[in-house]
Amino acid sequence: MRLRNIKGADEYVNSSAYVLKDYENLKGNFKSVFKNNNPIHLEIGTGKGDFIIGMALKYPDINFIGVEKYASVLYKLIGKIENMDIPNLKIIMMDATNIDKIFAHEVDTLYLNFSDPWPKERHYKRRLTSTEFLKRYENIFRGDNHIIQKTDNRGLFEFSLKEFVLNNYKIEDISLDLHNDDCPDNVETEYEKKFSAKGNPIYKVEVKK
Amino acid sequence: MRLRNIKGADEYVNSSAYVLKDYENLKGNFKSVFKNNNPIHLEIGTGKGDFIIGMALKYPDINFIGVEKYASVLYKLIGKIENMDIPNLKIIMMDATNIDKIFAHEVDTLYLNFSDPWPKERHYKRRLTSTEFLKRYENIFRGDNHIIQKTDNRGLFEFSLKEFVLNNYKIEDISLDLHNDDCPDNVETEYEKKFSAKGNPIYKVEVKK
Repeated sequence: MRLRNIKGADEYVNSSAYVLKDYENLKGNFKSVFKNNNPIHLEIGTGKGDFIIGMALKYPDINFIGVEKYASVLYKLIGKIENMDIPNLKIIMMDATNIDKIFAHEVDTLYLNFSDPWPKERHYKRRLTSTEFLKRYENIFRGDNHIIQKTDNRGLFEFSLKEFVLNNYKIEDISLDLHNDDCPDNVETEYEKKFSAKGNPIYKVEVKK
Repeated sequence: MRLRNIKGADEYVNSSAYVLKDYENLKGNFKSVFKNNNPIHLEIGTGKGDFIIGMALKYPDINFIGVEKYASVLYKLIGKIENMDIPNLKIIMMDATNIDKIFAHEVDTLYLNFSDPWPKERHYKRRLTSTEFLKRYENIFRGDNHIIQKTDNRGLFEFSLKEFVLNNYKIEDISLDLHNDDCPDNVETEYEKKFSAKGNPIYKVEVKK
């Protein structure tokens, strides 16, 4: 998501206790942040945070880390939770291109929700499900690689399926119209609420290897 | 497709020169039927034949074989072509369950168009993309296994993707809304015309291994 600069957003975000400042020194040891050995679920492209906040509240025995590049959206996320105490939620403000330098053998599930589709062919390596990114995720997982993607962008979803399979992921679950399925446990993102209201199908896939 | 018995359909179908009667003796030698070494493309569930007739007319250098169980639909296919001369088209009236006993190392591409979705969970082995059927196809191919599926049935398509990937197929191409893609070469089936006119998305996937 690209948004205009918002004055003071950087400082506001960085002043929050939810935001990890020393993340570059935590590689392989993120459990120390949470002071327990619960599973760690990571979301790349956390945006305004409705998904990860909802998940953290719903699953207190899972630790959630949201990665987002832009202070201009993160300040909205922080605004929502600054007066709450959610011990199993942390945020990292960084570019996901470096994700393999930050995490090592400690993530259980990776969420990619409504990622930038980068529709131009020449930008395909920037898509978060490109082979290039899948390689970056390769060593962040503790056990099986486990990725769950949701999007309303058909082109991105078609691309993602090809890339996952090319990289030897198996499809554990898939829905080509999530909101017409029985999915009582679905936690919606901001985008999802908006797009779904327009009647667009929401695609979801869960892959493992 | 299950249709009522139509009196005389069996005899009418079997009287056509398009319909192979001695197919059980042709295993590994179907090229002898066409008297050339052109690629052989097979369709299972040919129905009333709009797809395979259209393909055969469009690609005279490919040999097409349509497999269909029911005389009650095949007699319509035969009615369309009985007065035409299409040397690269043959029909087999049989149940696809035995496909591995009929073909051996001679099929280049297999089409599965708008197959019966068998929506009940307990019937999943009857779906033409189940692991059970994929195993039956294993030795029919000459080179790479190459399957192209089209359907408007979301449940069947989601199931098929999982099964293809589980059986180590790669996704060569995929569309989650074929008729909104640029696909000038698409040859439509009878069902496709009907369903597409209703505005339902048509799903298509091309897999290889």
